[in-house]
Amino acid sequence: MVEMPNPQLLLLHGPNLNMLGQREPSIYGTLTMAQIDQRCTELAGQLGYSLSCRQSNHEGQLVDWVQAAADEFVGIVLNPGAYTHSSIALLDAIRATKVPVVEVHLSNIHGREAFRSHSVTAAAAVGLISGFGANSYLLGIRALAQLLTEPMSFSS
Amino acid sequence: MVEMPNPQLLLLHGPNLNMLGQREPSIYGTLTMAQIDQRCTELAGQLGYSLSCRQSNHEGQLVDWVQAAADEFVGIVLNPGAYTHSSIALLDAIRATKVPVVEVHLSNIHGREAFRSHSVTAAAAVGLISGFGANSYLLGIRALAQLLTEPMSFSS
Amino acid sequence: MVEMPNPQLLLLHGPNLNMLGQREPSIYGTLTMAQIDQRCTELAGQLGYSLSCRQSNHEGQLVDWVQAAADEFVGIVLNPGAYTHSSIALLDAIRATKVPVVEVHLSNIHGREAFRSHSVTAAAAVGLISGFGANSYLLGIRALAQLLTEPMSFSS
Amino acid sequence: MVEMPNPQLLLLHGPNLNMLGQREPSIYGTLTMAQIDQRCTELAGQLGYSLSCRQSNHEGQLVDWVQAAADEFVGIVLNPGAYTHSSIALLDAIRATKVPVVEVHLSNIHGREAFRSHSVTAAAAVGLISGFGANSYLLGIRALAQLLTEPMSFSS
Amino acid sequence: MVEMPNPQLLLLHGPNLNMLGQREPSIYGTLTMAQIDQRCTELAGQLGYSLSCRQSNHEGQLVDWVQAAADEFVGIVLNPGAYTHSSIALLDAIRATKVPVVEVHLSNIHGREAFRSHSVTAAAAVGLISGFGANSYLLGIRALAQLLTEPMSFSS
Amino acid sequence: MVEMPNPQLLLLHGPNLNMLGQREPSIYGTLTMAQIDQRCTELAGQLGYSLSCRQSNHEGQLVDWVQAAADEFVGIVLNPGAYTHSSIALLDAIRATKVPVVEVHLSNIHGREAFRSHSVTAAAAVGLISGFGANSYLLGIRALAQLLTEPMSFSS
Amino acid sequence: MVEMPNPQLLLLHGPNLNMLGQREPSIYGTLTMAQIDQRCTELAGQLGYSLSCRQSNHEGQLVDWVQAAADEFVGIVLNPGAYTHSSIALLDAIRATKVPVVEVHLSNIHGREAFRSHSVTAAAAVGLISGFGANSYLLGIRALAQLLTEPMSFSS
Amino acid sequence: MVEMPNPQLLLLHGPNLNMLGQREPSIYGTLTMAQIDQRCTELAGQLGYSLSCRQSNHEGQLVDWVQAAADEFVGIVLNPGAYTHSSIALLDAIRATKVPVVEVHLSNIHGREAFRSHSVTAAAAVGLISGFGANSYLLGIRALAQLLTEPMSFSS
Amino acid sequence: MVEMPNPQLLLLHGPNLNMLGQREPSIYGTLTMAQIDQRCTELAGQLGYSLSCRQSNHEGQLVDWVQAAADEFVGIVLNPGAYTHSSIALLDAIRATKVPVVEVHLSNIHGREAFRSHSVTAAAAVGLISGFGANSYLLGIRALAQLLTEPMSFSS
Amino acid sequence: MVEMPNPQLLLLHGPNLNMLGQREPSIYGTLTMAQIDQRCTELAGQLGYSLSCRQSNHEGQLVDWVQAAADEFVGIVLNPGAYTHSSIALLDAIRATKVPVVEVHLSNIHGREAFRSHSVTAAAAVGLISGFGANSYLLGIRALAQLLTEPMSFSS
Amino acid sequence: MVEMPNPQLLLLHGPNLNMLGQREPSIYGTLTMAQIDQRCTELAGQLGYSLSCRQSNHEGQLVDWVQAAADEFVGIVLNPGAYTHSSIALLDAIRATKVPVVEVHLSNIHGREAFRSHSVTAAAAVGLISGFGANSYLLGIRALAQLLTEPMSFSS
Amino acid sequence: MVEMPNPQLLLLHGPNLNMLGQREPSIYGTLTMAQIDQRCTELAGQLGYSLSCRQSNHEGQLVDWVQAAADEFVGIVLNPGAYTHSSIALLDAIRATKVPVVEVHLSNIHGREAFRSHSVTAAAAVGLISGFGANSYLLGIRALAQLLTEPMSFSS
Repeated sequence: MVEMPNPQLLLLHGPNLNMLGQREPSIYGTLTMAQIDQRCTELAGQLGYSLSCRQSNHEGQLVDWVQAAADEFVGIVLNPGAYTHSSIALLDAIRATKVPVVEVHLSNIHGREAFRSHSVTAAAAVGLISGFGANSYLLGIRALAQLLTEPMSFSS
Repeated sequence: MVEMPNPQLLLLHGPNLNMLGQREPSIYGTLTMAQIDQRCTELAGQLGYSLSCRQSNHEGQLVDWVQAAADEFVGIVLNPGAYTHSSIALLDAIRATKVPVVEVHLSNIHGREAFRSHSVTAAAAVGLISGFGANSYLLGIRALAQLLTEPMSFSS
Repeated sequence: MVEMPNPQLLLLHGPNLNMLGQREPSIYGTLTMAQIDQRCTELAGQLGYSLSCRQSNHEGQLVDWVQAAADEFVGIVLNPGAYTHSSIALLDAIRATKVPVVEVHLSNIHGREAFRSHSVTAAAAVGLISGFGANSYLLGIRALAQLLTEPMSFSS
Repeated sequence: MVEMPNPQLLLLHGPNLNMLGQREPSIYGTLTMAQIDQRCTELAGQLGYSLSCRQSNHEGQLVDWVQAAADEFVGIVLNPGAYTHSSIALLDAIRATKVPVVEVHLSNIHGREAFRSHSVTAAAAVGLISGFGANSYLLGIRALAQLLTEPMSFSS
Repeated sequence: MVEMPNPQLLLLHGPNLNMLGQREPSIYGTLTMAQIDQRCTELAGQLGYSLSCRQSNHEGQLVDWVQAAADEFVGIVLNPGAYTHSSIALLDAIRATKVPVVEVHLSNIHGREAFRSHSVTAAAAVGLISGFGANSYLLGIRALAQLLTEPMSFSS
Repeated sequence: MVEMPNPQLLLLHGPNLNMLGQREPSIYGTLTMAQIDQRCTELAGQLGYSLSCRQSNHEGQLVDWVQAAADEFVGIVLNPGAYTHSSIALLDAIRATKVPVVEVHLSNIHGREAFRSHSVTAAAAVGLISGFGANSYLLGIRALAQLLTEPMSFSS
Repeated sequence: MVEMPNPQLLLLHGPNLNMLGQREPSIYGTLTMAQIDQRCTELAGQLGYSLSCRQSNHEGQLVDWVQAAADEFVGIVLNPGAYTHSSIALLDAIRATKVPVVEVHLSNIHGREAFRSHSVTAAAAVGLISGFGANSYLLGIRALAQLLTEPMSFSS
Repeated sequence: MVEMPNPQLLLLHGPNLNMLGQREPSIYGTLTMAQIDQRCTELAGQLGYSLSCRQSNHEGQLVDWVQAAADEFVGIVLNPGAYTHSSIALLDAIRATKVPVVEVHLSNIHGREAFRSHSVTAAAAVGLISGFGANSYLLGIRALAQLLTEPMSFSS
Repeated sequence: MVEMPNPQLLLLHGPNLNMLGQREPSIYGTLTMAQIDQRCTELAGQLGYSLSCRQSNHEGQLVDWVQAAADEFVGIVLNPGAYTHSSIALLDAIRATKVPVVEVHLSNIHGREAFRSHSVTAAAAVGLISGFGANSYLLGIRALAQLLTEPMSFSS
Repeated sequence: MVEMPNPQLLLLHGPNLNMLGQREPSIYGTLTMAQIDQRCTELAGQLGYSLSCRQSNHEGQLVDWVQAAADEFVGIVLNPGAYTHSSIALLDAIRATKVPVVEVHLSNIHGREAFRSHSVTAAAAVGLISGFGANSYLLGIRALAQLLTEPMSFSS
Repeated sequence: MVEMPNPQLLLLHGPNLNMLGQREPSIYGTLTMAQIDQRCTELAGQLGYSLSCRQSNHEGQLVDWVQAAADEFVGIVLNPGAYTHSSIALLDAIRATKVPVVEVHLSNIHGREAFRSHSVTAAAAVGLISGFGANSYLLGIRALAQLLTEPMSFSS
Repeated sequence: MVEMPNPQLLLLHGPNLNMLGQREPSIYGTLTMAQIDQRCTELAGQLGYSLSCRQSNHEGQLVDWVQAAADEFVGIVLNPGAYTHSSIALLDAIRATKVPVVEVHLSNIHGREAFRSHSVTAAAAVGLISGFGANSYLLGIRALAQLLTEPMSFSS
């Protein structure tokens, strides 16, 4: 008997997130991006999904990935990093894709400099989770999985 | 042998959330507040906590509850409703309390009218979860439980 | 033969309106709130309605009353007083209630200080009447009665 | 015995109000301007006044009429239409005239686009009535008549 | 056999455009308004339309013409001149008319003083063409003709 | 021997200036517009000019007059009244005309409401005189005459 | 012989001031509200007044107390806390009361976050004292006593 | 005899335009980018030009192409997509290139969200065409061809 | 018989005006300050006044002179130079002095950089004359003389 | 036995305060600066300090005095007058000095024109006292003395 | 004996700087980027450093290079070009890198369009040098070398 | 043979810079102004210039010095201190002088409080150097010398 493969989720990290663990650890924590990816992959597996993880400092690359995601993936967890606050191109890409996007942030964007408290991209995302360190990613995976499993029942 | 009671969490609903299920269901969903409270109580129980749920339309009442919470509770999940966007008094109360506060919203506050996209109170919260309907509450309970259980390890 | 009682209207006065007759009479007139209530009750009676009158300085109390109104009343005349200019909670309550709300003001809010020329709550009201002193209330009662009697015909 | 003629009121419609019944009926209703004029004339007659009705798309024409009104009329009901939001010339004319001006709007100007929520002209009017469709005009006639009949007693 | 006359288009020039050829030729070119009208009439003829051309310095006159256009014309090419940046009355008239309006400008409004870079009226027009000198008018005629001929097929 | 007629100046009054002497005399003085015109005509005569005086409440009429002025007049004294603060059409007309325009105001526009402290039209005028009551007009006539007589020598 | 009782002053603490001594001591100091009340009562006694002290987190409650104060008290020292920055209702209540109100703040409101540097309520107070820690209260009691004793002589 | 090849035009599509036909068809129409390219190529051919078409989601790629264009192309039609509203780098590249750039948009940028009504890049373009769906491209090709053929004669 | 000396006027030049004739002559003309002073002295003499002329680059010095003027002078002509746009101290000094102040400017302050179009000091002056080069001073002397001679009659 | 001299305080008056008693007495009172200085000297003496009083209209002079104060004085009471609202130089000087500065104002700066409600200099002062007429100075002397005597105990 | 190689510096040019010598030479000068690179390399050599030079129009590429720089280079001279004014991603990368970054500009960014006067990236740089044409680069190399050689002594 | 004296440069320090070494050393360093002057004099000598150094806290004094500089000096290095952010008088003086002015700052003005990130005076300077501590002065001397020696060649 042939087993059906797990449906796939995509985890996208925006600019400078590859520096995690080195950059301002008092704000962003000491975990590296690789460690976060591993934890997220484990949780996704427990929930019945496989997970691909990618990072880029290029706004256009992130737009390319969001556009192409619907061919392979059933949902996206996205940390747009610094592009959160300015990228209308990412906003449009999120609006154009057919799969749900959950936006996550390590730090609480409402508790920092003024120019970081506004998210341009979140207007097109399903929802936003920010401020729980690496747990923001895990909660994002879980939120996305619930959305995909039972979109009509409880999540209103 | 005497069993230790579970530690307690407090769930606070701000103004008009008692109208859930009746008010603009296309935005806020069809679940009632009582149904949300029940689901949250069950999840809290699974995670080893008991949960008290309260609602008020009075800004001062919410401030009173946040101030007094530390005597009985180990953490707060708060949906400040319309006071999210203006209440410096709630902001100060969250800053003054000794227990962590997780802010939740049913709808994605970044995808609605401009005056709803700014959260005054979130600056003092640990983090923010918005846009997942009633699931925002469940994710908030989970985020709070993780913070309380292993604040040092993974959540950076 | 049993007579049907009149349908009921609710008249709500916001903060400081209980001071009428004492506070800045050059702006607000010399009538007391009790005198206004009596005149409004008489006019409502002539139009076939009974009227309940209430006042509070508490934003939350006004929200409670607007929420609960639909159980007893068929319409609300509301003077939100100082909460006119800031209360998103009242705005949400007016949006959530099933009965029409007419907003009234004693003075012309466009002819005073800048911070009084914007009404947050009026966006959810059916309409606004301001600047006619105590007559603003009487015109509000009349506007509400017409709305309730013949909503389809003339009032567009 | 010679009968005294009724004192006269002036009803002024600003730009595009001659399009009523055709233009965006979901906002402005299906009554034509002629039907509104007829209803207002009837109500004015019941209250002991005769009524003249005029419309213009020209800001300068409206200023001319407001300036000249005091020679023939004892009061003005004015819907400045789009000039509400910008005309300092109309504001000055209302300030210069010796007769009272009541400003009316079909739709609730606080519930639409931001640039329509501010009235430049209302600062010089006695008061404002907006949001009751064609009833706004009738309530304006009534408010003006009360002002003229008993300015000192109840209207504060 | 009776020939059907060509359907008619209306070309409206706003304030100061009658000064073309004299006024700041480095910005507006050396062609006169009469020369532009002639070229536009020729192009319209080639495309199967006749064309009427009018100019006014009066905001109210332009509003009158836009309102009345639907009785005689199937579309309007409009250069609102200085009223572009402030006229809500023209905006409302464009919204109220049943025929499509194409807005044109001689100069590139985004390359001049800040107060000329915003168009109030364009929000109600089908589209905007600016910066090609007198060619802006010809392109506007062409755009309007395409809209009228095949509104469903290619123009999306 | 044939006498050469005096060269002509044009004096333009904007909206509501025909109300002078009646309107807010504490701000605008008790002289009527006719009295000002007479004084200005006398002074112009002493300086070797004849003077035509006109008033309109219509923005478009003022634009028409400024555009046509160069055919008959060698300079313009203009009080744009309320259009001072908003009329880009007048600004463009002043820019387009070949004769110099001096802007005058009865009251000190910098000492009143904020929306009156900015002049849109003055940017295209030669200069501005405001605050000297009817004398502002006389000083304007004099400034214009000096400009015309000896533009190169002293006025730099 | 019957002794006349001392005239009474009212000391009102706004939201979160009951948390003094626990909340951000680097900003607000280590004294508790009870210790401040005691010190103020002693100083008031030395100056010939008795003092009542109250605290509330409810905006409406503070408005109620200010409204009712004139029946029992001859003056108010008020720390509006977070409502300082937004409460028009308190502003109106201070305007309506017949007794003088002195506004006090523990910290220097001009040296903190931008949203704390503006006081809405101070516009109606007699004066403002901020930045001297608990001494702000004592200086406020003293300022109020001087006002009441010799309002005409020295305080200009 | 050797035929001279046609001069070449460049058509550049910015971010997300490769999604045309799938993304929000009520705003952007149902044509795909490939269909638009084909139509534009045909029209260019009729006007005596050949056309190259490219798309990128990368701001830097678009800048590269605009910089290099002058070596191969005689003009550019550019739809900068979301970079319209923010890219100073594209603005600088358009300023630096020696060939004319015509900016086009499918939808009317003045009739949508506020942040889309301002074009940063248009300040350096020759002109702007927006709101005619895919026809905006065809009109852009035509405008560019006219500019190149007879830059001095009619286009002023 | 003893002749009465002429009453005295004061002419004050603010910062950088001592550079006249050298600084940006395309804006400020080629006359030196000494030449302007001489012309103004002559005109003042013709009108029956003597004139003292002073210049300073120090805001405080100008304030001193305005404060002390009433002891010796009957009026002031003031060109505040760059302090026009920011000096509240000069504004207060003009308010405090008992003699009238006429503000003059060489260039048209409404036709230059935005930060020069607002005059802080003019709010306290009798009036403003700007844009006539050195003639602005002569017109200012004349305006002041008229004010002093016949303050009640014509100048409203 | 040699008596220790009293430590010295410095009282600085900014621009126009030497006009006290003459300038707008309805706002600033009828006391002269010399009378205020005498009262302050007496109070300082009672509290064990001697006092030097100085005034200048020069921003630079006030900066000089604040800079040099630490050599002779133990604290400063400063009324910066009009420089309150703009002087970053004074702000820097207050930051640089080693002695505490208490800012005082005669009138309530929050109850006047908008441009007076913001204090630039107060951000560096210990605290602010405004609105008590000449008493503001006395309260300032007292506040400063308390700070110097017992900085650690009560003033938090 | 083995010679130690010179430590390396990195010179990064942002978007459009490869166009130097062609683009708006009145602003940016006639030197090409290659000539600047050569001059900088020579100066770096004299100061004991070798220099690598790179250019990109891609924001993400610049971020990549700044992130990776610390592995090979001891300091960076960066001209962010148009990304100066908007790139939070570059700002974050500069904050995250361990080597000092000196920001340079050819033109004086404070003397051009308003949107170019603010530098987002400079907040994380050590310092800024702008306005000296190609010399800005040489001064930047020198500033960086001094910082690296004697960071503690003279550079404060 | 007579030796030509060196041409002279002027170094101007604005307000509070005489406090260097005492004031906030974490921002401004521990060098005194005298030490900086000595270092600058040495470097100027090496480059073939002599140097005069002056400091003032008076805006007017700095304006005087800039105005008079051209008689003795061939260039100016200016640190305007706090006047950087507000002084239009200094801006005008820099515009009026015939010698080049280089603006320098000890600290990085883009990395501090918002009100320090904008330079009013830099718009008229040749260029700006900020953030390198006392080295900013040395780099400024060098930049000025290069400008004077070879203005046409390299500095574009």
